[in-house]
Amino acid sequence: MTNFKITIEYDGTPFSGWQVQNDCKTVQGEIQQALSLILNQPVRINGSGRTDAGVHALAQVATFNAETGIKCQALKKGLNSVIKGPIVIHECTRVDDGFHARYNARAKEYHYHILNRQDPCAVGSNYLWHIQKPLDLTAMEECCEIITGTHDFKAFEGAGSPRSTTVRTLFSAGFDTENDHRLRFRVRGDGFLRFMVRNIVGTLVLAGIGKISPKEFKTILEKQDRNLAGATAPAKGLFLVTVFYN
Amino acid sequence: MTNFKITIEYDGTPFSGWQVQNDCKTVQGEIQQALSLILNQPVRINGSGRTDAGVHALAQVATFNAETGIKCQALKKGLNSVIKGPIVIHECTRVDDGFHARYNARAKEYHYHILNRQDPCAVGSNYLWHIQKPLDLTAMEECCEIITGTHDFKAFEGAGSPRSTTVRTLFSAGFDTENDHRLRFRVRGDGFLRFMVRNIVGTLVLAGIGKISPKEFKTILEKQDRNLAGATAPAKGLFLVTVFYN
Repeated sequence: MTNFKITIEYDGTPFSGWQVQNDCKTVQGEIQQALSLILNQPVRINGSGRTDAGVHALAQVATFNAETGIKCQALKKGLNSVIKGPIVIHECTRVDDGFHARYNARAKEYHYHILNRQDPCAVGSNYLWHIQKPLDLTAMEECCEIITGTHDFKAFEGAGSPRSTTVRTLFSAGFDTENDHRLRFRVRGDGFLRFMVRNIVGTLVLAGIGKISPKEFKTILEKQDRNLAGATAPAKGLFLVTVFYN
Repeated sequence: MTNFKITIEYDGTPFSGWQVQNDCKTVQGEIQQALSLILNQPVRINGSGRTDAGVHALAQVATFNAETGIKCQALKKGLNSVIKGPIVIHECTRVDDGFHARYNARAKEYHYHILNRQDPCAVGSNYLWHIQKPLDLTAMEECCEIITGTHDFKAFEGAGSPRSTTVRTLFSAGFDTENDHRLRFRVRGDGFLRFMVRNIVGTLVLAGIGKISPKEFKTILEKQDRNLAGATAPAKGLFLVTVFYN
């Protein structure tokens, strides 16, 4: 058996998320179908983590085992010609037997794109969250400092995601302003709970529009109560950008 | 009757182009339907020009007459809440009676986006043309100089577009490199023939991959023979960016 690692870009718009589900078009499902066709055997891939319906990835990572002598370049080329939908394989390499996309991941970086102006946009509206009310960037940056570091992120965890612990470490969190209207939230951490980035963004926006103060944002984090935090930000603004390995 | 001017952004992907057609979803059709609903009268709008199926616009301009006392801001807001599909009205103003989006247009600027690398992309693939072969930017820039100025652009005209003359003036044409892989062709002129930008781009790419020399590019322009020029570049890379008025 050979162990392969692939790096995958996808537009989440037409997919019911990463994970295989019955009767739904998923990223994992499309890749597995293409791999099974090319390698003439059932193949199951392990992603670095799931992404939800509508969430995009610039460089998701997955590993899989297969009984094959195929060259990595040929496999990559084959996959890109067979896969259906907006999925592109950017890298395909052989890796050590024990290497696993999820268990070996040390950190991840996500970006979240916001359009902040009165008018919505027509081009590229699948890739951002349009917010009409002016956002106070200073207040939002203050909140970013509050979440940076090791905390219990229970307040930002989505329902239905049993975990041994809700403590995570964020190495960095902050905003870039691409232009007057476009903001990009960057966050890098050792792991993320279900809906965690989108719940953080939803709550940052509450601070941005002045509905809560950075001090109240801190209280929400400390009280670990999901009901105090903001709504889950739309999936379409979120990108899995990098998965880090040793 | 009041004469209105609107500025429109749209994602051309789901539309059969600008112009109203039976049984097809068009940008003009969607806007007219929304206007007729809001103003409670049949409204016909005149665009600065047609865009073909799949072509995008950041700031298309249209004018129309209506019997109404509605405020421009209210009309804009109403349109943006009623219009179906990826269309956004950015401006709505009252203009002089004689003003016409097409007849008064003095110049237009189009952009064409190219992704030039081995791998395609998954995110945003509706907004660019992916070309695998490396492009020689110097050769393409040389061709841009050749087409700048006043010429008969018959060699770059699509079929089925009767015009009194095929002479047009390009005020500027050239490439920006957004990063290693992304090129943007910018062209500004007093008017454009049907498929002209896409036929120019298709022929520039022939020069970029070394299939023709800039000298041969010049001959194609001078011979005015469409059969010598390159294929029409895909619609999805093309954006109508600005319409200029006095």
